[in-house]
Amino acid sequence: MTSLAPDAVRQDNTLAILGALRARGPMARVDLGAVNGISSATVTAITAELLRHGLVTELPAEPHRPGGRGRPKTLIRLEPEAARVVCVKLSLNEVQVVVGDFTGQVRHAETRSLTTASLTPEALCDVLEERVRAAASALPGEPPRLGGICLAVQGVVSPTSGTLVWSPALRFRNAPLAAPLAERFGCPVLLENDANCIASMLARQPAYADAPNLAVIMLGYGIGMSVRIEGKPFLGTGGSAAEIGHSKFEPGGALCACGRRGCIEAYASDYALYREAHALLPLPPGDSAHPSEEQMQALVRLAEQGDPVARQIYHKAGRALGYGIANVLALFNPDLVLLTGSGVRGYAAMRPALEAAIDEALVPELVGASRLATHHWDRDMTCLGGIGMILEATDPALLAGKLQA
Amino acid sequence: MTSLAPDAVRQDNTLAILGALRARGPMARVDLGAVNGISSATVTAITAELLRHGLVTELPAEPHRPGGRGRPKTLIRLEPEAARVVCVKLSLNEVQVVVGDFTGQVRHAETRSLTTASLTPEALCDVLEERVRAAASALPGEPPRLGGICLAVQGVVSPTSGTLVWSPALRFRNAPLAAPLAERFGCPVLLENDANCIASMLARQPAYADAPNLAVIMLGYGIGMSVRIEGKPFLGTGGSAAEIGHSKFEPGGALCACGRRGCIEAYASDYALYREAHALLPLPPGDSAHPSEEQMQALVRLAEQGDPVARQIYHKAGRALGYGIANVLALFNPDLVLLTGSGVRGYAAMRPALEAAIDEALVPELVGASRLATHHWDRDMTCLGGIGMILEATDPALLAGKLQA
Repeated sequence: MTSLAPDAVRQDNTLAILGALRARGPMARVDLGAVNGISSATVTAITAELLRHGLVTELPAEPHRPGGRGRPKTLIRLEPEAARVVCVKLSLNEVQVVVGDFTGQVRHAETRSLTTASLTPEALCDVLEERVRAAASALPGEPPRLGGICLAVQGVVSPTSGTLVWSPALRFRNAPLAAPLAERFGCPVLLENDANCIASMLARQPAYADAPNLAVIMLGYGIGMSVRIEGKPFLGTGGSAAEIGHSKFEPGGALCACGRRGCIEAYASDYALYREAHALLPLPPGDSAHPSEEQMQALVRLAEQGDPVARQIYHKAGRALGYGIANVLALFNPDLVLLTGSGVRGYAAMRPALEAAIDEALVPELVGASRLATHHWDRDMTCLGGIGMILEATDPALLAGKLQA
Repeated sequence: MTSLAPDAVRQDNTLAILGALRARGPMARVDLGAVNGISSATVTAITAELLRHGLVTELPAEPHRPGGRGRPKTLIRLEPEAARVVCVKLSLNEVQVVVGDFTGQVRHAETRSLTTASLTPEALCDVLEERVRAAASALPGEPPRLGGICLAVQGVVSPTSGTLVWSPALRFRNAPLAAPLAERFGCPVLLENDANCIASMLARQPAYADAPNLAVIMLGYGIGMSVRIEGKPFLGTGGSAAEIGHSKFEPGGALCACGRRGCIEAYASDYALYREAHALLPLPPGDSAHPSEEQMQALVRLAEQGDPVARQIYHKAGRALGYGIANVLALFNPDLVLLTGSGVRGYAAMRPALEAAIDEALVPELVGASRLATHHWDRDMTCLGGIGMILEATDPALLAGKLQA
């Protein structure tokens, strides 16, 4: 099936070369060999094949600099137009669709609201098909052929079987989604947890290259986590590993969206913070079940201004989250725990209680050398990660339409 | 250094052949190739080398059975005398030394008490050297040359650096132990967590072959865990992963041996059960800091006979352990959680509360297909596992004294 890669080693090398070009921009053949540990003969053979299929182009050699030695180098660069891929992010009452090119850059993005909880699996596929086709048509020119789609969902998914196990955005359970969407679009569809998409995007950043054992915690309407072990996503047997949101702060504690009590999410997620706040504090009006960014910003501002009720709410959230992180440290012993998601807006207000809770929970030997940091949040991070994942996971010849799915 | 294995692939194949002979007993060359996926030419070359060094011997071909087809097969078997290895299990106030042969069978075992908490690292090495030499000398004939030693310790160790980070049996912290012991004995020394030794022994059993993602929880004086992911031990960055004993049941709860509050160990370990029991129940006399097996058996009997205080103690322990297991399920999503250790004596008394706690803590989607089971406890399991680990981890030529360490 892989016309560009007659065997597994060749395929790995092809993906490594494309990955390097995606991460670093145009490169000379000699440097592509050096950074990937591939012989120059292999680089030459692979780039010839990629050139022939139009997946890369050559940039004219830079003019010889005065005093520079040797022949000027011809650079290889990815051809942005070689493929179009899509990431769809499905969260409670919202669908974001992002169209990316072969380099992983975003070419078009749109976000629409949608009453997700009432959807059946088939109705969801109908809506997604319509939204994806509309987003692809919004690009100038002919609607492009899609090379691959990543569907990033809050909740528990099984990427291997393409089944959605459980999502707070949806009422149905245990429904295959990847296969029916792949049939509708005629291209590979990857079903992923949204936190895994973000973690894969963060793991590609040089700042976190020294943290192959990485736990990325997503704070927002809910609380998710993605754990990477030695640079690879850790999914567990059925895809439901790393569910920090439903690990426990205290038995019989606050009621969680999952229906159980005492989950970390029931203290430190947006809905939990807002639930505590809305009866007692002057917040902007809105939907009580789904606090708006404006409402959450107002709550954070009150805490930062010293309002005792708002401070108390963030104190309790920080304490619960700190105990949750302590369990992650005791059980995973990662290099780094990275907090991100829209909920990092409240980190400064949670931080003193969070750090005190970790200290209260764990002896220094169990904290070890694990570090804790935050990463600023950008709502496009999930889709950028998802686009990177589908580009990395798919045979480039298939992405570019040189083969049938 | 590896005279028996000129390259990494050959070394892997050699270890695979020795591993198969250890697990299954004598085998024909053709079967050794089939179970390991190695060509018959390679099996022939490797077994010739192993025969030449006296690590395996040939068993005379079985007489041709009437009606049997083809040539009778010559069987290859491990030479038990080819190497002697030792596992030392260090726990609070006790040292167990087991001498094994090249097949992994126990040839000698002895257990002595020792006041561990007052030892310096050097004094510990002195005692261990003396005990290991005494155990080796207890075998008939000349004291054998030792091919490798596994030191299995309760607590946090870093197997890669051979450093003991922290053990409840010892007061000192962060001390290298593998290197000084390797120097004294002139052979490789592997420092391991005791739960990892047990898990490696259990993972070799056919009953658990369908559980590559396996969490083994050791109940006893303390509570330890070993997590195996896709068949390999998961250690975390500094070796302190899988510390379920110090994950939390409730903030500000019962005082733990680690000095913090609310740890699972502070409810469900032997010392925690005994602490609750000893003022209220008629138990045999003994050392209050280290309950004896006799005392713990008496406590379990009271619970089984319906004593309300004993039942209440096991109920609380089961509830705390159930919450701890729920966090393991939410974070690791394993195939199987296996409870073992001397503390399984109380499992029947804990079970109703433990199962109710998991159900109370987690929605069924997060329990998923993970199973929970117990494995009967045998005090030699740690040392059998440690002997297996040192045999698997060490170059066979080094084990057998064909090379210098």
